[in-house]
Amino acid sequence: MNDTIKTQLDHRTIRAWLDKEIPEDKVQELLDVAIQTSTSNGMQQASIIRVKDTEKRERLAKITTQDYIITASEVFVFIADNYRNYKIMEEMKAENNYANDIDRFFQGFTDAAIMAQNVAVAAESMDLGIVYFGSILNDVEETINILKLPENTFPVVAMGIGYPDKTNYPQLKPRIDKENRVFTDEYKTYDSYLDELEEYDKVMRTYYDTRDTNPKEESFTEQVYNKNSVQVAKRPELLEIIKKQAYQI
Amino acid sequence: MNDTIKTQLDHRTIRAWLDKEIPEDKVQELLDVAIQTSTSNGMQQASIIRVKDTEKRERLAKITTQDYIITASEVFVFIADNYRNYKIMEEMKAENNYANDIDRFFQGFTDAAIMAQNVAVAAESMDLGIVYFGSILNDVEETINILKLPENTFPVVAMGIGYPDKTNYPQLKPRIDKENRVFTDEYKTYDSYLDELEEYDKVMRTYYDTRDTNPKEESFTEQVYNKNSVQVAKRPELLEIIKKQAYQI
Repeated sequence: MNDTIKTQLDHRTIRAWLDKEIPEDKVQELLDVAIQTSTSNGMQQASIIRVKDTEKRERLAKITTQDYIITASEVFVFIADNYRNYKIMEEMKAENNYANDIDRFFQGFTDAAIMAQNVAVAAESMDLGIVYFGSILNDVEETINILKLPENTFPVVAMGIGYPDKTNYPQLKPRIDKENRVFTDEYKTYDSYLDELEEYDKVMRTYYDTRDTNPKEESFTEQVYNKNSVQVAKRPELLEIIKKQAYQI
Repeated sequence: MNDTIKTQLDHRTIRAWLDKEIPEDKVQELLDVAIQTSTSNGMQQASIIRVKDTEKRERLAKITTQDYIITASEVFVFIADNYRNYKIMEEMKAENNYANDIDRFFQGFTDAAIMAQNVAVAAESMDLGIVYFGSILNDVEETINILKLPENTFPVVAMGIGYPDKTNYPQLKPRIDKENRVFTDEYKTYDSYLDELEEYDKVMRTYYDTRDTNPKEESFTEQVYNKNSVQVAKRPELLEIIKKQAYQI
Protein backbone atom coordinates (compact mmCIF):
# COMPACT_ATOMS: atom_id res chain seq x y z
CA MET A 1 0.00 0.00 0.00
CA ASN A 2 1.45 3.36 -1.01
CA ASP A 3 1.70 6.49 1.16
CA THR A 4 -1.14 8.33 -0.56
CA ILE A 5 -3.59 5.54 0.18
CA LYS A 6 -2.26 5.06 3.72
CA THR A 7 -2.99 8.74 4.34
CA GLN A 8 -6.45 8.47 2.78
CA LEU A 9 -7.36 5.46 4.91
CA ASP A 10 -6.17 7.36 7.96
CA HIS A 11 -8.49 10.32 7.34
CA ARG A 12 -10.10 11.84 10.41
CA THR A 13 -11.78 15.18 10.88
CA ILE A 14 -9.68 17.70 12.80
CA ARG A 15 -11.33 20.29 15.01
CA ALA A 16 -8.47 21.28 17.34
CA TRP A 17 -5.57 23.16 15.82
CA LEU A 18 -2.09 24.17 16.88
CA ASP A 19 -1.59 27.92 16.91
CA LYS A 20 0.66 27.77 13.84
CA GLU A 21 0.23 29.20 10.37
CA ILE A 22 0.62 27.13 7.20
CA PRO A 23 3.53 28.67 5.24
CA GLU A 24 2.32 30.57 2.17
CA ASP A 25 4.19 28.33 -0.29
CA LYS A 26 2.34 25.32 1.11
CA VAL A 27 -0.99 27.13 0.80
CA GLN A 28 -0.15 27.90 -2.82
CA GLU A 29 0.61 24.21 -3.43
CA LEU A 30 -2.87 23.37 -2.14
CA LEU A 31 -4.39 25.95 -4.46
CA ASP A 32 -2.36 24.62 -7.41
CA VAL A 33 -3.81 21.18 -6.72
CA ALA A 34 -7.29 22.71 -6.55
CA ILE A 35 -6.91 24.31 -9.97
CA GLN A 36 -5.64 21.10 -11.58
CA THR A 37 -8.68 19.08 -10.41
CA SER A 38 -10.85 17.43 -13.05
CA THR A 39 -13.65 19.68 -14.26
CA SER A 40 -16.88 18.94 -16.14
CA ASN A 41 -16.42 19.48 -19.88
CA GLY A 42 -13.26 21.46 -19.19
CA MET A 43 -15.54 24.36 -18.22
CA GLN A 44 -13.84 25.11 -14.86
CA GLN A 45 -17.05 26.07 -13.12
CA ALA A 46 -15.65 26.18 -9.59
CA SER A 47 -13.78 28.84 -7.63
CA ILE A 48 -12.40 29.27 -4.13
CA ILE A 49 -12.84 32.06 -1.63
CA ARG A 50 -9.94 32.05 0.81
CA VAL A 51 -11.31 33.61 3.97
CA LYS A 52 -8.66 35.46 5.96
CA ASP A 53 -10.71 38.27 7.47
CA THR A 54 -11.48 37.60 11.13
CA GLU A 55 -14.83 39.33 11.10
CA LYS A 56 -15.97 37.22 8.15
CA ARG A 57 -14.72 34.09 9.91
CA GLU A 58 -16.75 35.08 12.97
CA ARG A 59 -19.85 35.57 10.86
CA LEU A 60 -19.32 32.16 9.26
CA ALA A 61 -18.91 30.67 12.75
CA LYS A 62 -22.35 31.98 13.66
CA ILE A 63 -23.82 30.19 10.64
CA THR A 64 -21.94 26.96 11.14
CA THR A 65 -22.03 27.05 14.97
CA GLN A 66 -18.49 25.68 14.72
CA ASP A 67 -15.98 28.04 16.34
CA TYR A 68 -12.99 26.18 14.95
CA ILE A 69 -13.69 27.92 11.63
CA ILE A 70 -12.23 31.01 13.34
CA THR A 71 -9.06 29.33 14.61
CA ALA A 72 -8.18 27.23 11.53
CA SER A 73 -5.03 28.41 9.80
CA GLU A 74 -6.84 28.48 6.44
CA VAL A 75 -10.50 28.50 5.44
CA PHE A 76 -11.43 27.82 1.83
CA VAL A 77 -14.99 28.08 0.58
CA PHE A 78 -15.58 26.07 -2.61
CA ILE A 79 -18.01 27.79 -4.96
CA ALA A 80 -20.04 26.50 -7.87
CA ASP A 81 -19.09 29.28 -10.28
CA ASN A 82 -21.25 29.68 -13.36
CA TYR A 83 -20.84 33.45 -13.32
CA ARG A 84 -17.66 33.50 -15.39
CA ASN A 85 -19.01 31.48 -18.29
CA TYR A 86 -22.35 33.29 -18.21
CA LYS A 87 -20.54 36.60 -18.57
CA ILE A 88 -18.33 35.25 -21.35
CA MET A 89 -21.49 34.28 -23.24
CA GLU A 90 -22.91 37.77 -22.72
CA GLU A 91 -19.72 39.43 -23.91
CA MET A 92 -19.76 37.21 -27.00
CA LYS A 93 -23.39 38.19 -27.56
CA ALA A 94 -24.51 34.57 -27.65
CA GLU A 95 -28.06 34.15 -28.86
CA ASN A 96 -28.72 31.28 -26.46
CA ASN A 97 -27.05 31.37 -23.08
CA TYR A 98 -27.48 28.17 -21.09
CA ALA A 99 -24.47 28.77 -18.86
CA ASN A 100 -26.72 29.05 -15.81
CA ASP A 101 -29.24 26.26 -16.38
CA ILE A 102 -29.70 23.41 -13.93
CA ASP A 103 -27.32 21.20 -15.87
CA ARG A 104 -24.50 23.71 -15.48
CA PHE A 105 -25.48 24.33 -11.88
CA PHE A 106 -24.88 20.66 -11.11
CA GLN A 107 -21.67 20.68 -13.14
CA GLY A 108 -20.44 23.60 -11.05
CA PHE A 109 -21.59 21.96 -7.84
CA THR A 110 -19.74 18.74 -8.71
CA ASP A 111 -16.63 20.65 -9.81
CA ALA A 112 -16.52 22.48 -6.48
CA ALA A 113 -17.04 19.32 -4.41
CA ILE A 114 -14.36 17.27 -6.14
CA MET A 115 -11.99 20.24 -5.95
CA ALA A 116 -12.54 20.32 -2.20
CA GLN A 117 -11.66 16.65 -1.80
CA ASN A 118 -8.57 17.04 -3.96
CA VAL A 119 -7.41 19.78 -1.57
CA ALA A 120 -8.31 17.58 1.42
CA VAL A 121 -6.03 14.78 0.23
CA ALA A 122 -3.22 17.23 -0.62
CA ALA A 123 -3.47 18.83 2.82
CA GLU A 124 -3.43 15.49 4.64
CA SER A 125 -0.44 14.38 2.57
CA MET A 126 1.40 17.39 4.12
CA ASP A 127 0.39 16.24 7.64
CA LEU A 128 -2.15 19.00 7.84
CA GLY A 129 -5.63 18.27 9.14
CA ILE A 130 -8.94 19.28 7.60
CA VAL A 131 -12.56 19.72 8.57
CA TYR A 132 -15.45 20.13 6.17
CA PHE A 133 -18.07 22.75 6.93
CA GLY A 134 -21.22 21.66 5.10
CA SER A 135 -22.92 23.83 7.69
CA ILE A 136 -22.28 27.01 5.67
CA LEU A 137 -25.59 26.00 4.08
CA ASN A 138 -27.40 26.45 7.41
CA ASP A 139 -27.97 30.01 6.23
CA VAL A 140 -26.81 30.06 2.65
CA GLU A 141 -28.09 33.58 2.01
CA GLU A 142 -25.89 34.94 4.78
CA THR A 143 -22.94 32.91 3.47
CA ILE A 144 -23.55 34.48 0.06
CA ASN A 145 -23.65 37.96 1.64
CA ILE A 146 -20.46 37.45 3.62
CA LEU A 147 -18.50 36.31 0.56
CA LYS A 148 -20.24 38.76 -1.82
CA LEU A 149 -21.08 35.95 -4.21
CA PRO A 150 -22.62 37.25 -7.44
CA GLU A 151 -25.52 35.70 -9.32
CA ASN A 152 -24.87 32.33 -10.90
CA THR A 153 -22.60 31.24 -8.09
CA PHE A 154 -23.40 29.06 -5.08
CA PRO A 155 -21.35 28.00 -2.06
CA VAL A 156 -20.99 24.21 -1.95
CA VAL A 157 -18.81 23.45 1.05
CA ALA A 158 -16.12 25.09 3.18
CA MET A 159 -12.98 23.58 4.64
CA GLY A 160 -10.79 24.49 7.58
CA ILE A 161 -7.13 23.47 7.30
CA GLY A 162 -4.37 23.62 9.88
CA TYR A 163 -1.87 21.73 11.98
CA PRO A 164 -3.73 19.21 14.12
CA ASP A 165 -3.40 19.43 17.88
CA LYS A 166 -2.22 15.86 18.48
CA THR A 167 -3.05 16.09 22.19
CA ASN A 168 -6.69 16.18 21.10
CA TYR A 169 -6.56 13.77 18.18
CA PRO A 170 -9.74 11.92 17.21
CA GLN A 171 -9.96 8.18 16.76
CA LEU A 172 -10.50 6.78 13.31
CA LYS A 173 -14.27 6.86 12.80
CA PRO A 174 -15.71 3.46 11.88
CA ARG A 175 -17.73 3.24 8.67
CA ILE A 176 -20.62 1.10 7.49
CA ASP A 177 -19.27 -2.10 5.93
CA LYS A 178 -18.28 -1.99 2.29
CA GLU A 179 -20.81 -4.69 1.33
CA ASN A 180 -23.60 -2.32 2.38
CA ARG A 181 -22.24 0.56 0.34
CA VAL A 182 -20.76 -0.98 -2.78
CA PHE A 183 -23.01 -2.95 -5.10
CA THR A 184 -22.29 -4.79 -8.33
CA ASP A 185 -24.23 -3.82 -11.46
CA GLU A 186 -27.35 -2.70 -9.62
CA TYR A 187 -28.49 -1.26 -6.31
CA LYS A 188 -29.23 -3.80 -3.60
CA THR A 189 -31.94 -3.11 -1.05
CA TYR A 190 -32.29 -4.91 2.28
CA ASP A 191 -35.44 -5.98 4.12
CA SER A 192 -34.24 -4.53 7.41
CA TYR A 193 -31.49 -1.98 7.80
CA LEU A 194 -31.72 -2.24 11.57
CA ASP A 195 -30.79 -5.93 11.30
CA GLU A 196 -28.20 -5.27 8.61
CA LEU A 197 -26.49 -2.54 10.66
CA GLU A 198 -26.73 -4.24 14.05
CA GLU A 199 -23.01 -4.97 14.25
CA TYR A 200 -22.07 -1.49 13.07
CA ASP A 201 -24.42 0.01 15.64
CA LYS A 202 -22.50 -1.85 18.35
CA VAL A 203 -19.18 -0.56 17.03
CA MET A 204 -20.45 3.01 16.91
CA ARG A 205 -21.83 2.83 20.44
CA THR A 206 -18.34 2.28 21.78
CA TYR A 207 -16.66 4.79 19.48
CA TYR A 208 -15.45 7.79 21.40
CA ASP A 209 -15.64 10.91 19.30
CA THR A 210 -13.41 13.66 20.70
CA ARG A 211 -15.51 16.29 19.02
CA ASP A 212 -17.92 16.10 21.93
CA THR A 213 -17.14 17.50 25.31
CA ASN A 214 -19.73 15.00 26.46
CA PRO A 215 -18.98 11.83 24.54
CA LYS A 216 -22.21 10.26 23.44
CA GLU A 217 -23.06 6.62 23.31
CA GLU A 218 -25.26 6.66 20.28
CA SER A 219 -25.51 3.94 17.71
CA PHE A 220 -25.48 4.86 14.02
CA THR A 221 -29.18 4.23 13.52
CA GLU A 222 -29.93 6.33 16.61
CA GLN A 223 -27.87 9.13 15.10
CA VAL A 224 -29.79 8.76 11.84
CA TYR A 225 -33.02 9.00 13.80
CA ASN A 226 -31.99 12.07 15.76
CA LYS A 227 -30.48 13.94 12.83
CA ASN A 228 -33.26 13.22 10.34
CA SER A 229 -36.16 14.00 12.67
CA VAL A 230 -35.44 17.73 12.46
CA GLN A 231 -34.73 20.28 9.79
CA VAL A 232 -32.04 22.91 10.24
CA ALA A 233 -33.81 26.27 10.17
CA LYS A 234 -33.02 27.65 6.71
CA ARG A 235 -31.83 24.60 4.80
CA PRO A 236 -35.18 23.61 3.30
CA GLU A 237 -35.02 26.87 1.33
CA LEU A 238 -31.95 25.85 -0.65
CA LEU A 239 -33.83 25.65 -3.94
CA GLU A 240 -35.28 29.12 -3.45
CA ILE A 241 -31.82 30.57 -2.90
CA ILE A 242 -30.50 28.82 -6.00
CA LYS A 243 -33.27 30.55 -7.95
CA LYS A 244 -32.51 33.83 -6.22
CA GLN A 245 -28.93 33.44 -7.43
CA ALA A 246 -30.43 33.73 -10.92
CA TYR A 247 -30.02 30.12 -11.93
CA GLN A 248 -32.54 29.10 -14.60
CA ILE A 249 -33.90 26.04 -12.89
CA MET B 1 6.80 18.59 -2.95
CA ASN B 2 5.58 15.14 -1.90
CA ASP B 3 4.54 12.29 -4.20
CA THR B 4 0.81 12.67 -3.54
CA ILE B 5 0.84 16.27 -4.68
CA LYS B 6 3.12 15.53 -7.63
CA THR B 7 0.56 12.96 -8.78
CA GLN B 8 -2.33 15.38 -8.26
CA LEU B 9 -0.62 18.13 -10.25
CA ASP B 10 0.02 15.62 -13.02
CA HIS B 11 -3.67 14.69 -13.36
CA ARG B 12 -4.90 14.12 -16.89
CA THR B 13 -8.02 12.43 -18.16
CA ILE B 14 -7.38 8.97 -19.63
CA ARG B 15 -9.54 7.69 -22.47
CA ALA B 16 -7.31 4.98 -23.96
CA TRP B 17 -6.67 1.88 -21.87
CA LEU B 18 -4.35 -1.09 -21.99
CA ASP B 19 -6.21 -4.38 -22.24
CA LYS B 20 -5.30 -5.31 -18.66
CA GLU B 21 -7.46 -5.87 -15.60
CA ILE B 22 -6.82 -4.13 -12.28
CA PRO B 23 -6.11 -6.91 -9.72
CA GLU B 24 -9.00 -7.40 -7.31
CA ASP B 25 -6.97 -6.49 -4.20
CA LYS B 26 -6.18 -3.12 -5.79
CA VAL B 27 -9.85 -2.56 -6.62
CA GLN B 28 -10.71 -3.33 -3.00
CA GLU B 29 -8.11 -0.77 -1.85
CA LEU B 30 -9.87 1.84 -3.98
CA LEU B 31 -13.20 0.90 -2.44
CA ASP B 32 -11.71 1.05 1.08
CA VAL B 33 -10.58 4.59 0.34
CA ALA B 34 -14.07 5.42 -0.97
CA ILE B 35 -15.70 4.23 2.26
CA GLN B 36 -13.30 6.19 4.46
CA THR B 37 -14.05 9.51 2.68
CA SER B 38 -15.46 12.37 4.74
CA THR B 39 -19.23 12.36 4.89
CA SER B 40 -21.76 15.05 5.81
CA ASN B 41 -22.79 14.72 9.47
CA GLY B 42 -21.41 11.18 9.51
CA MET B 43 -24.56 10.11 7.66
CA GLN B 44 -22.76 8.18 4.85
CA GLN B 45 -25.28 9.15 2.20
CA ALA B 46 -23.27 7.89 -0.77
CA SER B 47 -22.89 4.48 -2.37
CA ILE B 48 -21.11 2.97 -5.34
CA ILE B 49 -22.39 0.77 -8.13
CA ARG B 50 -19.50 -1.19 -9.63
CA VAL B 51 -20.57 -1.91 -13.19
CA LYS B 52 -19.11 -5.15 -14.52
CA ASP B 53 -21.89 -6.33 -16.80
CA THR B 54 -21.04 -5.67 -20.45
CA GLU B 55 -24.60 -5.07 -21.54
CA LYS B 56 -25.03 -2.43 -18.84
CA ARG B 57 -21.73 -0.84 -19.88
CA GLU B 58 -22.98 -0.70 -23.46
CA ARG B 59 -26.22 0.94 -22.38
CA LEU B 60 -24.23 3.50 -20.37
CA ALA B 61 -22.06 4.12 -23.43
CA LYS B 62 -25.17 5.03 -25.40
CA ILE B 63 -26.06 7.62 -22.77
CA THR B 64 -22.58 9.03 -22.40
CA THR B 65 -21.63 8.65 -26.08
CA GLN B 66 -18.22 7.65 -24.72
CA ASP B 67 -17.27 4.13 -25.78
CA TYR B 68 -14.31 3.96 -23.44
CA ILE B 69 -16.81 3.31 -20.63
CA ILE B 70 -17.04 -0.19 -22.14
CA THR B 71 -13.31 -0.85 -22.29
CA ALA B 72 -12.28 0.60 -18.90
CA SER B 73 -11.10 -2.05 -16.47
CA GLU B 74 -13.46 -0.71 -13.79
CA VAL B 75 -16.51 1.54 -13.88
CA PHE B 76 -17.82 2.99 -10.63
CA VAL B 77 -21.01 5.02 -10.46
CA PHE B 78 -21.17 7.27 -7.41
CA ILE B 79 -24.68 7.58 -6.01
CA ALA B 80 -26.28 10.10 -3.68
CA ASP B 81 -27.90 7.55 -1.39
CA ASN B 82 -30.64 8.80 0.90
CA TYR B 83 -32.55 5.53 0.61
CA ARG B 84 -30.78 3.79 3.48
CA ASN B 85 -31.43 6.50 6.07
CA TYR B 86 -34.98 7.05 4.87
CA LYS B 87 -35.70 3.35 5.40
CA ILE B 88 -34.02 3.37 8.81
CA MET B 89 -36.35 6.23 9.82
CA GLU B 90 -39.33 4.23 8.57
CA GLU B 91 -38.26 1.13 10.45
CA MET B 92 -37.83 3.22 13.59
CA LYS B 93 -41.31 4.64 13.01
CA ALA B 94 -40.03 8.20 13.12
CA GLU B 95 -42.79 10.76 13.34
CA ASN B 96 -40.92 13.21 11.11
CA ASN B 97 -38.73 11.82 8.35
CA TYR B 98 -36.60 14.45 6.64
CA ALA B 99 -34.06 11.96 5.30
CA ASN B 100 -35.07 12.80 1.74
CA ASP B 101 -35.48 16.57 1.83
CA ILE B 102 -33.44 18.91 -0.36
CA ASP B 103 -30.87 19.43 2.38
CA ARG B 104 -30.13 15.70 2.58
CA PHE B 105 -30.22 15.43 -1.20
CA PHE B 106 -27.37 17.95 -1.42
CA GLN B 107 -25.54 16.22 1.43
CA GLY B 108 -25.75 12.95 -0.48
CA PHE B 109 -24.74 14.63 -3.72
CA THR B 110 -21.69 16.19 -2.05
CA ASP B 111 -20.79 12.92 -0.29
CA ALA B 112 -20.85 11.08 -3.62
CA ALA B 113 -18.78 13.71 -5.44
CA ILE B 114 -16.03 13.92 -2.82
CA MET B 115 -15.97 10.13 -2.61
CA ALA B 116 -15.36 10.03 -6.37
CA GLN B 117 -12.40 12.39 -6.14
CA ASN B 118 -10.91 10.45 -3.25
CA VAL B 119 -11.00 7.35 -5.46
CA ALA B 120 -9.52 9.34 -8.35
CA VAL B 121 -6.48 10.34 -6.29
CA ALA B 122 -6.05 6.81 -4.94
CA ALA B 123 -6.22 5.35 -8.44
CA GLU B 124 -3.70 7.81 -9.83
CA SER B 125 -1.36 7.11 -6.91
CA MET B 126 -1.32 3.47 -8.16
CA ASP B 127 -0.40 4.65 -11.69
CA LEU B 128 -3.90 3.95 -12.89
CA GLY B 129 -5.72 6.47 -15.04
CA ILE B 130 -9.24 7.77 -14.60
CA VAL B 131 -11.94 9.49 -16.60
CA TYR B 132 -15.06 11.10 -15.16
CA PHE B 133 -18.38 10.49 -16.89
CA GLY B 134 -20.60 13.40 -15.93
CA SER B 135 -22.44 12.44 -19.08
CA ILE B 136 -24.43 9.71 -17.28
CA LEU B 137 -26.75 12.65 -16.61
CA ASN B 138 -27.45 13.04 -20.35
CA ASP B 139 -30.33 10.65 -19.72
CA VAL B 140 -30.50 10.27 -15.99
CA GLU B 141 -33.73 8.29 -16.08
CA GLU B 142 -32.11 5.63 -18.22
CA THR B 143 -29.05 5.60 -15.94
CA ILE B 144 -31.42 5.05 -13.00
CA ASN B 145 -33.10 2.17 -14.88
CA ILE B 146 -29.84 0.50 -15.81
CA LEU B 147 -28.56 0.53 -12.24
CA LYS B 148 -32.00 -0.15 -10.70
CA LEU B 149 -31.63 2.82 -8.38
CA PRO B 150 -34.49 3.00 -5.86
CA GLU B 151 -36.27 6.13 -4.74
CA ASN B 152 -34.23 8.60 -2.73
CA THR B 153 -31.09 7.84 -4.66
CA PHE B 154 -29.53 9.78 -7.54
CA PRO B 155 -26.49 9.11 -9.75
CA VAL B 156 -23.95 11.91 -9.38
CA VAL B 157 -21.01 10.94 -11.55
CA ALA B 158 -19.34 7.82 -12.97
CA MET B 159 -15.68 7.02 -13.33
CA GLY B 160 -13.73 4.72 -15.61
CA ILE B 161 -10.46 3.38 -14.21
CA GLY B 162 -7.75 1.40 -15.91
CA TYR B 163 -4.14 1.20 -17.01
CA PRO B 164 -3.43 4.11 -19.35
CA ASP B 165 -2.25 3.39 -22.85
CA LYS B 166 0.91 5.47 -22.75
CA THR B 167 1.23 5.43 -26.54
CA ASN B 168 -1.87 7.62 -26.56
CA TYR B 169 -1.18 9.75 -23.53
CA PRO B 170 -2.75 13.20 -23.30
CA GLN B 171 -0.82 16.37 -22.57
CA LEU B 172 -1.37 18.13 -19.30
CA LYS B 173 -4.39 20.35 -19.89
CA PRO B 174 -3.73 24.02 -19.09
CA ARG B 175 -6.02 25.68 -16.59
CA ILE B 176 -7.26 29.23 -16.08
CA ASP B 177 -4.80 31.13 -13.88
CA LYS B 178 -5.15 30.81 -10.15
CA GLU B 179 -5.74 34.55 -9.69
CA ASN B 180 -8.93 34.24 -11.72
CA ARG B 181 -10.22 31.32 -9.66
CA VAL B 182 -9.05 31.98 -6.11
CA PHE B 183 -10.22 35.12 -4.35
CA THR B 184 -9.52 36.46 -0.88
CA ASP B 185 -12.45 37.14 1.46
CA GLU B 186 -14.93 37.92 -1.28
CA TYR B 187 -15.70 37.12 -4.91
CA LYS B 188 -13.99 39.33 -7.44
CA THR B 189 -15.71 40.14 -10.73
CA TYR B 190 -13.97 41.48 -13.85
CA ASP B 191 -15.17 44.01 -16.38
CA SER B 192 -14.19 41.85 -19.32
CA TYR B 193 -13.53 38.13 -19.16
CA LEU B 194 -12.48 38.12 -22.80
CA ASP B 195 -9.68 40.53 -21.91
CA GLU B 196 -8.87 38.72 -18.69
CA LEU B 197 -8.63 35.33 -20.41
CA GLU B 198 -6.84 36.49 -23.56
CA GLU B 199 -3.54 34.85 -22.63
CA TYR B 200 -5.24 31.62 -21.56
CA ASP B 201 -7.16 31.57 -24.83
CA LYS B 202 -3.84 31.65 -26.70
CA VAL B 203 -2.49 28.78 -24.62
CA MET B 204 -5.59 26.69 -25.22
CA ARG B 205 -5.52 27.33 -28.95
CA THR B 206 -2.17 25.57 -29.19
CA TYR B 207 -3.06 22.79 -26.76
CA TYR B 208 -3.38 19.49 -28.54
CA ASP B 209 -5.99 17.32 -26.90
CA THR B 210 -5.54 13.67 -27.85
CA ARG B 211 -9.18 13.00 -27.14
CA ASP B 212 -9.98 14.29 -30.61
CA THR B 213 -9.25 12.38 -33.74
CA ASN B 214 -9.41 15.81 -35.33
CA PRO B 215 -7.53 18.05 -32.95
CA LYS B 216 -9.36 21.34 -32.68
CA GLU B 217 -7.86 24.77 -32.42
CA GLU B 218 -10.40 26.32 -30.16
CA SER B 219 -9.73 28.90 -27.50
CA PHE B 220 -11.29 28.49 -24.06
CA THR B 221 -13.86 31.24 -24.58
CA GLU B 222 -14.80 29.71 -27.94
CA GLN B 223 -15.34 26.39 -26.17
CA VAL B 224 -17.48 28.14 -23.57
CA TYR B 225 -19.51 29.69 -26.38
CA ASN B 226 -20.00 26.43 -28.24
CA LYS B 227 -20.80 24.33 -25.21
CA ASN B 228 -23.17 26.80 -23.55
CA SER B 229 -25.16 27.66 -26.68
CA VAL B 230 -26.89 24.29 -26.63
CA GLN B 231 -28.63 22.09 -24.12
CA VAL B 232 -28.07 18.35 -24.04
CA ALA B 233 -31.44 16.75 -24.79
CA LYS B 234 -32.62 15.51 -21.39
CA ARG B 235 -30.43 17.40 -18.95
CA PRO B 236 -32.79 20.34 -18.37
CA GLU B 237 -35.17 17.82 -16.76
CA LEU B 238 -32.83 16.99 -13.89
CA LEU B 239 -35.05 18.60 -11.28
CA GLU B 240 -38.06 16.64 -12.48
CA ILE B 241 -36.15 13.38 -12.16
CA ILE B 242 -34.99 14.29 -8.65
CA LYS B 243 -38.66 14.75 -7.75
CA LYS B 244 -39.54 11.49 -9.49
CA GLN B 245 -36.96 9.79 -7.31
CA ALA B 246 -39.26 10.79 -4.43
CA TYR B 247 -37.09 13.52 -3.00
CA GLN B 248 -39.16 16.08 -1.07
CA ILE B 249 -37.87 19.17 -2.80
